[in-house]
Amino acid sequence: MTKYVYLFSEGNASMRNLLGGKGANLAEMTGLGLPVPRGFTVTTEACTRYYADGQTIAQEIQDQIYEALAKTEQIVGKKFGDPSNPLLVSVRSGARASMPGMMDTILNLGINDEVVEGLAKLTNNPRFAYDSYRRFIQMFSDVVMEIERLKFENILDDVKRAKNVEHDTELTVDDLKEVVRRYKELFRKEKGFDFPQDPRVQLMEAVKAVFRSWENPRAVVYRRLNDIPSDWGTAVNVQEMVFGNMGNDSGTGVAFTRNPSTGEKKLYGEFLMNAQGEDVVAGIRTPQSIDQLREINPEIYNQFVEIAEKLEKHYRDMQDMEFTIERGKLFMLQTRNGKRTAAAALKIAVDLVREGMITKEEAVLKVDPKQLDTLLHPTFDPAALKKAVPIAKGLPASPGAATGKIYFTAEDAVNAVKNGESKVILVRLETSPEDIEGMHVSQGILTGRGGMTSHAAVVARGMGTCCVAGCGEIRINEEEKYFIDKNGKKYVEGDWISLDGSTGNVYGEQLPTVAPEMVGDFATLMSWADEIRVLKVRTNADTPADAAQAYKFGAEGIGLCRTEHMFFEPDRIPAMREMIVARSLEQRKKALEKLLPMQRSDFEKIFTEMKGHPVTIRFLDPPLHEFLPQDDEDIAALAKEMGMSYEDLKAVVNDLHEFNPMMGHRGCRLAVSYPEIAEMQTRAVIEAAINVNRKGMNVVPEIMIPLVGDVKELKYIKDVVVRTADEIIRNSGIKLEYKVGTMIEIPRAAITADEIAREAEFFSFGTNDLTQMTFGFSRDDAGKFLEEYYSKKIYEFDPFEKLDQNGVGKLMEMAVKLGKSTRPDIKLGICGEHGGDPSSVEFCHRIGLDYVSCSPYRVPIARLAAAQAQVNYPREKKQ
Amino acid sequence: MTKYVYLFSEGNASMRNLLGGKGANLAEMTGLGLPVPRGFTVTTEACTRYYADGQTIAQEIQDQIYEALAKTEQIVGKKFGDPSNPLLVSVRSGARASMPGMMDTILNLGINDEVVEGLAKLTNNPRFAYDSYRRFIQMFSDVVMEIERLKFENILDDVKRAKNVEHDTELTVDDLKEVVRRYKELFRKEKGFDFPQDPRVQLMEAVKAVFRSWENPRAVVYRRLNDIPSDWGTAVNVQEMVFGNMGNDSGTGVAFTRNPSTGEKKLYGEFLMNAQGEDVVAGIRTPQSIDQLREINPEIYNQFVEIAEKLEKHYRDMQDMEFTIERGKLFMLQTRNGKRTAAAALKIAVDLVREGMITKEEAVLKVDPKQLDTLLHPTFDPAALKKAVPIAKGLPASPGAATGKIYFTAEDAVNAVKNGESKVILVRLETSPEDIEGMHVSQGILTGRGGMTSHAAVVARGMGTCCVAGCGEIRINEEEKYFIDKNGKKYVEGDWISLDGSTGNVYGEQLPTVAPEMVGDFATLMSWADEIRVLKVRTNADTPADAAQAYKFGAEGIGLCRTEHMFFEPDRIPAMREMIVARSLEQRKKALEKLLPMQRSDFEKIFTEMKGHPVTIRFLDPPLHEFLPQDDEDIAALAKEMGMSYEDLKAVVNDLHEFNPMMGHRGCRLAVSYPEIAEMQTRAVIEAAINVNRKGMNVVPEIMIPLVGDVKELKYIKDVVVRTADEIIRNSGIKLEYKVGTMIEIPRAAITADEIAREAEFFSFGTNDLTQMTFGFSRDDAGKFLEEYYSKKIYEFDPFEKLDQNGVGKLMEMAVKLGKSTRPDIKLGICGEHGGDPSSVEFCHRIGLDYVSCSPYRVPIARLAAAQAQVNYPREKKQ
Repeated sequence: MTKYVYLFSEGNASMRNLLGGKGANLAEMTGLGLPVPRGFTVTTEACTRYYADGQTIAQEIQDQIYEALAKTEQIVGKKFGDPSNPLLVSVRSGARASMPGMMDTILNLGINDEVVEGLAKLTNNPRFAYDSYRRFIQMFSDVVMEIERLKFENILDDVKRAKNVEHDTELTVDDLKEVVRRYKELFRKEKGFDFPQDPRVQLMEAVKAVFRSWENPRAVVYRRLNDIPSDWGTAVNVQEMVFGNMGNDSGTGVAFTRNPSTGEKKLYGEFLMNAQGEDVVAGIRTPQSIDQLREINPEIYNQFVEIAEKLEKHYRDMQDMEFTIERGKLFMLQTRNGKRTAAAALKIAVDLVREGMITKEEAVLKVDPKQLDTLLHPTFDPAALKKAVPIAKGLPASPGAATGKIYFTAEDAVNAVKNGESKVILVRLETSPEDIEGMHVSQGILTGRGGMTSHAAVVARGMGTCCVAGCGEIRINEEEKYFIDKNGKKYVEGDWISLDGSTGNVYGEQLPTVAPEMVGDFATLMSWADEIRVLKVRTNADTPADAAQAYKFGAEGIGLCRTEHMFFEPDRIPAMREMIVARSLEQRKKALEKLLPMQRSDFEKIFTEMKGHPVTIRFLDPPLHEFLPQDDEDIAALAKEMGMSYEDLKAVVNDLHEFNPMMGHRGCRLAVSYPEIAEMQTRAVIEAAINVNRKGMNVVPEIMIPLVGDVKELKYIKDVVVRTADEIIRNSGIKLEYKVGTMIEIPRAAITADEIAREAEFFSFGTNDLTQMTFGFSRDDAGKFLEEYYSKKIYEFDPFEKLDQNGVGKLMEMAVKLGKSTRPDIKLGICGEHGGDPSSVEFCHRIGLDYVSCSPYRVPIARLAAAQAQVNYPREKKQ
Repeated sequence: MTKYVYLFSEGNASMRNLLGGKGANLAEMTGLGLPVPRGFTVTTEACTRYYADGQTIAQEIQDQIYEALAKTEQIVGKKFGDPSNPLLVSVRSGARASMPGMMDTILNLGINDEVVEGLAKLTNNPRFAYDSYRRFIQMFSDVVMEIERLKFENILDDVKRAKNVEHDTELTVDDLKEVVRRYKELFRKEKGFDFPQDPRVQLMEAVKAVFRSWENPRAVVYRRLNDIPSDWGTAVNVQEMVFGNMGNDSGTGVAFTRNPSTGEKKLYGEFLMNAQGEDVVAGIRTPQSIDQLREINPEIYNQFVEIAEKLEKHYRDMQDMEFTIERGKLFMLQTRNGKRTAAAALKIAVDLVREGMITKEEAVLKVDPKQLDTLLHPTFDPAALKKAVPIAKGLPASPGAATGKIYFTAEDAVNAVKNGESKVILVRLETSPEDIEGMHVSQGILTGRGGMTSHAAVVARGMGTCCVAGCGEIRINEEEKYFIDKNGKKYVEGDWISLDGSTGNVYGEQLPTVAPEMVGDFATLMSWADEIRVLKVRTNADTPADAAQAYKFGAEGIGLCRTEHMFFEPDRIPAMREMIVARSLEQRKKALEKLLPMQRSDFEKIFTEMKGHPVTIRFLDPPLHEFLPQDDEDIAALAKEMGMSYEDLKAVVNDLHEFNPMMGHRGCRLAVSYPEIAEMQTRAVIEAAINVNRKGMNVVPEIMIPLVGDVKELKYIKDVVVRTADEIIRNSGIKLEYKVGTMIEIPRAAITADEIAREAEFFSFGTNDLTQMTFGFSRDDAGKFLEEYYSKKIYEFDPFEKLDQNGVGKLMEMAVKLGKSTRPDIKLGICGEHGGDPSSVEFCHRIGLDYVSCSPYRVPIARLAAAQAQVNYPREKKQ
């Protein structure tokens, strides 16, 4: 028979999956001999069973609960429901991972009309007894029975008004009795039956409520955002109540073994004498600092310090503890590894190693890679932020804090900067590739439409620029250059706003920002991560500036340099357009000749910035229509500029129209149609490499052909590349190595990777497109239905943010295996957005990739995630 | 050492892959002791080696060729290049499969300035000798040396003009000598060296030319159209010349053992006395029927008849033979299985079984399934066709012959039919789903744009309607309702045209058509196919009429009934649109209520037509914007009709806009967003099944959920289906079985088929979408670059027509294996366009599918292909 219920004395910290975090730690503390109120845990498996049984608690589980309850009664010498010596309990949820959004706590469970009387006598405090009863009815009705909390508040207010008092504490015992009477009356009216007087019924209903809360909408959303599977379930902890509000020798508090904001090694916390936990939270009385407990009760203080030290040593991590003092006796109610800021996490991890408490490997596991993000971007001055009121909220698409004057077109933004404006925010309905330059010069980007993976979001994250996307609360009028906030206030060109890319908040004013602090502990921890990891980390960078930034962040090369972004620059796009509208090979070659020196010089700069580290250059990828305007007015203007007729240019635009541009004439298909493009790009890469190598560098450029689905496509283009490159190298008289490889971003490429590896010297997984094709939806369009998928629990996460290991991942594993079967030393990497996502980095490590490549601002995150992957899944180091 | 050259006496018919068809048959005939001029074959492997060696013939191959030549000289007692007793040879290509487009023949090779003199003496016919030399120089220069043929013709014309004669035959020996002199002069001028006098050089250059011709553009195109891999290569046959033009006791001819048009068992052919092969082809003299040979030379005739019978018995198939009579002696130059019309193929196959020559299994292999197509559609009266001149040519997108009056909008076509017009042809730039009804009422469809897999082509093939697509030679003006043909002639609404869907020809007149003949042999052969095959054949049918047609053609059920086509009908689309613009669940349900009875009644009719055979109904699939107009004028009109404002309707249209509709909000994603649609469709299916079963049928409907990529999507919708269906069945009081399954058309579905099979009772491979997603291109857009892919030999076939077994096929195999691992008895089918393609049908048979489903007009093709697959790859029959 499965054991569904464990006494605290039967468990330990290693049983976290079964007992939840809270339960496992209560058991561990009990085992350590610490003063823990006794109780038991109903396991996470009972929760899973509850759902499997159609949301009922099986009889055998009920039996085990009652059995554990009986044992607890025996140990503590009190009896559940016995007015003369009542056992009261708290009921709390506790999942494997700490998870807000679920039911938290029901206190004082076990009170009924008789017990309340006994309690009054025992404590000699009828007010306390009835106040507890009142609170219990309200909490139970709200949380367990789902009666609106407000209705109880209204009764309380009624009574207070009738008595003409302001605070609850001014009510008399009789007033409280009246409140209890009306609460029970309300309960009966709402539910059609009396408030349950049987404590066993109270208990079982509370357990059910905890189980139900696992599927709260808020809990579901939290799980999705934090990669927690829905089949984990939550445990339920039932624990003897102890009271911190039994007089001045009682109290309650919380404390951390180290400062959770700074990481400083010093007990940090606060407490209130004669109070219960809620009072500390409610903020009516000001809590005292934990230091002051030393003066009030040195004996308790010393005992607590000793326990805290013991716990930190035991768990080898900073602890977050809850305690209660009941009539001069200390009880530990909870301990857990404390949440902390990124800065604190770094300091604590480094300090613990220096204190000899943990190894470097353990230290790198103690910092959440995603948290580093906050250290890599400017933030708002917290004081100013506290006072500021958001005027709207959008999606936190790219972190950071930005403040600047608003402009409504990329051109206006660029001109403003040219005219000396240093802080600009670009406000658009949505952005397109033509806006790139405007996005580049802006401190932040605000869009009215689009999701976390919209063009604005993806590009902004790539640039490390703050972005709030899909802000539907404001109405943007691009033509007339203004927007209206949710309160109806109008903002015009040049007005100041501020964006918080970490929360999605938009502020209608200029807020001061503080620069990111790159403290020493950060550097130390990253150096340990670098020692440990075997997975290399490269960056996706299209410009020398991005490359330089990424190099500073520790990038070991460029995994993806998109050549088309260069073509959008205002000095280049005319030649690009000339190439597109060319009617003959000669015209096209002439236009390409103009682009050649620009590309070559870009590559020279990028090679130089990367100081000889490998640079993977992807050849032209997007459909050509992206380089031409789409609306008639712009077409007319461009036609005039290019000296051609409107009709002719319009015909080109029409001809380039595609029903599904994502699946159209792009990627290597362009080079198959126009090999002269690949020829020009090869020339630019190879000549640039020769030029910098002449100056003493040792660049080995990697040419990457995108969107390959068949080895013959790759072969055709590779032949052009090799012919062109070898001729240039021969004529140069110097030696140059280079590699030709491909992206694996089409399912067919993954399936036929053994064939493709015959020609490809490296694979780079383009998991953005691979995810789109594997799922059969485009990320531009999926936003419309993915919300529905999350709310209906069909998807638990966004496959564009976190790699779909079960589907896309299987294709990747297949490609790795097939690729190595043909070419055992094939170089393997990833350059999709997933390259900067910690769980995806771990996956890439596990399937044996050589490197991940991500945007510059995610490089430190990937370095840490790669180290964690190596600690958790050790792989042999290549030499 | 590899043997690259075989004497005819060293080979046999089984060595076709190595020796090519022609070479293998020459060897076989030699082995049979038939009178075959001696010679040898250079193998297909030598051709492959030639390309591998950078288009050179390796020394070892040259050595083997000269060795074989020496042996041949010995056998025939003549010597290559010896003026006193010269051996002349023909050089001919011969691939595994008969393949027009390659170099055919060089005759008389071995002549030079000396040999010509010897030949003149030996034959006592200097005119013959110099005429042969002249022809040889011209043929060799043209075919081997790529000198323009016209330049030689000009010289000949020059000489004739100078001599003031009209025919070549009027030229004297001296004239011919002059022609030879000037030919050689031209050769020297063009090539910079003398015409090769060394017969061995002539031979080696001719062999190379044959190898080169394997990559002729025409040969490449032919291979693509006929699924011939490019790595097969061609063999070269070198054979002693015999001369049919050595006087009246000489002659040459071709004959079939049975009539290739009708299949009648009677020698069929023609010959010319005192002539060479070219003369028969040139058509200057009228050949005589083979029967007349009996009168001219009964001995030779009888010998030939005996050989013909021997060959037919030997090959157990109708033979196509070439022969030459040299001075009263018969020589066989070639035999091969003869090409034949579909009708002849059927008759011959059935007759051969009846004659006891072959088994039924062999008989089904003798008919090319694709050929049946011509028997299933009306054709033009051959006499009328002979006289007609096409006004343009497009792509033969859907076979058949159509004649009718032209209309330029679907609406006009519908109205014309309503007004009593019985023959209508719809002419459009391109068609869209809104044109369905107009396409339905038309005899044929002509489009100006789009490829073999454009909307018009796919839908027309599905309907069995004749279609010529992508006819760029005409200029269509839809607005003003006319088109201009390639000669500038204008055709307006109501003018007659005719379309040949098998050739792509368009005629500017009314041509008479003849109905398809379903002769008895057809039925007999199909019944044998049905006895043999294990793969079931279903049809894709959306209407009762299609279902009835398919049933007549032998469909054993419906594999794909697309429910959305029903919604485009004019009486339904208003309710559909009402559903789409609904702002609330209630409004949507109200609109769905209107659609319910229409759907139900459609399903009742379809079930009835299929007489209890399984019917798979696919739930709503296309993106909703397809049901709404896109241009502003139409939107305004519809808004008025629907009683809503233009702005509101325009907002709905904008909201439904997608960047990549193929990868957007469609398929099961619609039902996830609007489960009430699935509910209504379930209701319609289940109620219809109950209604017909009440009348004594036994329908087991199969509900198919499209575009599933994750088991949870399927589960979510299946829950809706099952809940709805079970309630209806319970209330009906009768028993009804039904199945719920899914399409496998998203790569992720194939990869996770084990999970999906937990919920799916059947899989149907939607290989249209699966091909798109696996290759990463949409078939609407791929037309733009696929031509380039063919011409650059990156693709050898259209993956939308023939299943890509190497990529898409691997995903299918994976899905079959994974699906069966979870659910061993899962039902497996295919409903993409590939279900009617013979090579794809064979693949489906091999990987173990239970059925293929194709358009009604392809059902007989699939039945035959399935039987052939079973003969070639026997599979156990399920009971």
